[in-house]
Amino acid sequence: MIASVSDVQRYKMIVAYRGTRYHGWAHQEVPPTWKKKVDPPDKFGTGGLPTIYRALAQAIQHVVRHPVAVVGSSRTDTGVHGKAQLAHFDTTQLEIPNDGLRRAINHQLPDDILVRDLEAVSFDFHAILSTTRKRYQYLIWHAEDRPPFLAGYCWHRWQELDVPAMREGAEHLVGEHDFTSFAKAGHGRRSAVRTIYGIDIAYRPPRLVIGIEGNGFLWNMVRIIVGTLVAVGLGHVKPEDVKQMLEAKDRRAARGTAPASGLYLQWIKTDGVKSDDAGEEE
Amino acid sequence: MIASVSDVQRYKMIVAYRGTRYHGWAHQEVPPTWKKKVDPPDKFGTGGLPTIYRALAQAIQHVVRHPVAVVGSSRTDTGVHGKAQLAHFDTTQLEIPNDGLRRAINHQLPDDILVRDLEAVSFDFHAILSTTRKRYQYLIWHAEDRPPFLAGYCWHRWQELDVPAMREGAEHLVGEHDFTSFAKAGHGRRSAVRTIYGIDIAYRPPRLVIGIEGNGFLWNMVRIIVGTLVAVGLGHVKPEDVKQMLEAKDRRAARGTAPASGLYLQWIKTDGVKSDDAGEEE
Repeated sequence: MIASVSDVQRYKMIVAYRGTRYHGWAHQEVPPTWKKKVDPPDKFGTGGLPTIYRALAQAIQHVVRHPVAVVGSSRTDTGVHGKAQLAHFDTTQLEIPNDGLRRAINHQLPDDILVRDLEAVSFDFHAILSTTRKRYQYLIWHAEDRPPFLAGYCWHRWQELDVPAMREGAEHLVGEHDFTSFAKAGHGRRSAVRTIYGIDIAYRPPRLVIGIEGNGFLWNMVRIIVGTLVAVGLGHVKPEDVKQMLEAKDRRAARGTAPASGLYLQWIKTDGVKSDDAGEEE
Repeated sequence: MIASVSDVQRYKMIVAYRGTRYHGWAHQEVPPTWKKKVDPPDKFGTGGLPTIYRALAQAIQHVVRHPVAVVGSSRTDTGVHGKAQLAHFDTTQLEIPNDGLRRAINHQLPDDILVRDLEAVSFDFHAILSTTRKRYQYLIWHAEDRPPFLAGYCWHRWQELDVPAMREGAEHLVGEHDFTSFAKAGHGRRSAVRTIYGIDIAYRPPRLVIGIEGNGFLWNMVRIIVGTLVAVGLGHVKPEDVKQMLEAKDRRAARGTAPASGLYLQWIKTDGVKSDDAGEEE
């Protein structure tokens, strides 16, 4: 018997998570050099390193009782946080109402991952293909001391930063460019051309929040942009140098990669609909 | 040669910490039943379970290069946070200026503990004996969903709570009372009489913050008070029952103990001087 489309339902999810304990979003097999003990796969065969994917897939599988593939819009790295990641999965379990399904999945999830919203959608929706715009936020704690409660949630910088110079440097990155200089080598994408719609820097000491909106981002792109803008702020690089870095199309032209702990996937837009970030702590 | 008082300096410290990773403030030897691996003692012999004490003593010893005993005003439990714990230690290392000493100690500490302030004081000062007043805060996240960023930082409650009833119940605890009913058995203090100066409940949904000020607190006292007030809020207990609980002088009369994750030592006062909590995140 072949299942017809009416036997399968696609669900769209908005997921928040603290990235600290995880090896990023994407599924990862256990490498042969891995020394730490890893939990055995669940009964549907989903195992590998502790990732947001593994936690979500295992929780959903436990509820719907069949293997599930979770598709996420953004493959956030180890330690990177998600305020409103967008994802989808398909299930033949049609008997649980939406909110019951969401609660049941949340009940199975560890306390640092939360399905904020879950909605039945048509097969036209696809977490990656439907994405039109994304926004990342980067939090710098700019003071001599950083409260211990923020360890893992920000980048702690204490030297003086020339914020207007950072804003000036950022302007060179706005628009459609080849971002090869601002991507980790081996990003694996056919094209390094992306469009940045805007970079805003909000400075309410000691919080310095860099917001970046674009149609998509390469591996480590936001973190390399932040590392470079901080180099501008410190006076190590002139704002106008950012333009030449971009033109060099060489990772070595830009500056260091800012740590993952300060990075938040803030929202993802699909055809005008934004994964909401209201009510979230920064 | 006997060291004279002028060869020793007492330092007062204000310390902030995230309690999540620690077995509380106080030093604890490794129990024989302990299964996890523990770091070996440092070269001054300070070892035991991972506690705030151990981390601080090891960091200070590394800097001053002699064994040090750290005296803390409050022995917070496993998972309880400190915004402004008060502590002191004595050292014969007199060559480092105050701020250099503070920085050097912070440099040795893990990122979830911070010496916020360090000051040379006379031997009249003693972190326990000089303490006149303390304030704890308890954070309840009152909503169906709790952002994953707050895991370990609050108690997540979603049922309806009658906040005016909680305030009414709290009033019965204010004043000088025998708090035997609100202390974990085996608290080890000669007297269970303490004075609570006030309990305030600030409710800005989804945050419900219970603040408790007193001259001192017994083991688990704040958490048992919070657990009991939540039982009042849920309607399981009437506000006026709190008075009888107090009079029973029996731990079984009061309700359950609220989890450690929501509890913050907010400040400690010594003869009019308050360990400051300005600039801290709640």
